[in-house]
Amino acid sequence: MDQKALTKLSYGVYVVSVWDKGRPTGCIANSCMQITSSPATLAVSVHHDNYTNQCMKDGGFFGVSVLSESVDPGIIGTFGYFSGKDTDKFEKIPFAVVGNLPMVKESCAKLSCKVIDTLETSTHTIFIGEVTDAVVSNDQPPMTYAYYHNVIKGKSPKNAPTYQKDE
Amino acid sequence: MDQKALTKLSYGVYVVSVWDKGRPTGCIANSCMQITSSPATLAVSVHHDNYTNQCMKDGGFFGVSVLSESVDPGIIGTFGYFSGKDTDKFEKIPFAVVGNLPMVKESCAKLSCKVIDTLETSTHTIFIGEVTDAVVSNDQPPMTYAYYHNVIKGKSPKNAPTYQKDE
Repeated sequence: MDQKALTKLSYGVYVVSVWDKGRPTGCIANSCMQITSSPATLAVSVHHDNYTNQCMKDGGFFGVSVLSESVDPGIIGTFGYFSGKDTDKFEKIPFAVVGNLPMVKESCAKLSCKVIDTLETSTHTIFIGEVTDAVVSNDQPPMTYAYYHNVIKGKSPKNAPTYQKDE
Repeated sequence: MDQKALTKLSYGVYVVSVWDKGRPTGCIANSCMQITSSPATLAVSVHHDNYTNQCMKDGGFFGVSVLSESVDPGIIGTFGYFSGKDTDKFEKIPFAVVGNLPMVKESCAKLSCKVIDTLETSTHTIFIGEVTDAVVSNDQPPMTYAYYHNVIKGKSPKNAPTYQKDE
């Protein structure tokens, strides 16, 4: 099996965000996709070890901020390489509230979701969320994971579905 | 809710394929993503009305062919706008067998999967597949859905999760 075949799948780069007892937090996700058209639902895959996972289960809601190609790479660093358990990720990163959920202000689109189902896998939870509110914030092109990997030269955090040891 | 926000999510363009009583068939999918890293698993969302959906449930296996930017658009037309129930989609489109599954020969990567779980939604089934074999066939860039939409000027088939009436 050629592991490189997995790198041929296309993704965006997102921040999945939640309220954690009144405090905003979140993590980077690239595994996010629309599942149904009407009503609009999304699926996102979040590692069991991500603090955000438990907050999504506790709160029952999550936001998806779509990062654009021109996003400050520090946002990816903060949300991808630290844990919300012991880091206040939104301390220096402004957030906007859409559909009662905190989102990364510097994102090109923001979608708020209500968890309507979950599916557990060996390492990740797939959350199915019904989109309850959505806004387009600007016309900057959404960042693809390929752009992040090839242009920004970013790597997958170890909890990402796309993480490969020899990356 | 601004429906355009949903168009900011990034996808690839894939053919999900199966054996149907010894005959190869399949359909276009853009909602495909890796869920876990080790073992590697994928999730794909396929509409209940797609003939391929029933074949995936009956057979328990499916292939994912990653289409590249240079793919013959006729392949997308054949797999996206006809039903495998009454059309022999692979009649004029060569296939290759990888991991015992039929794949679109003209694709940049091919992944064979065994169905290990499913999740039903109102209109689509999410299939979770463990990747059992995978090959990279060439170095052509994978087609993103944005490329299909913006460069090839393609639209979503009505069974796609990303379908919008006013598209």
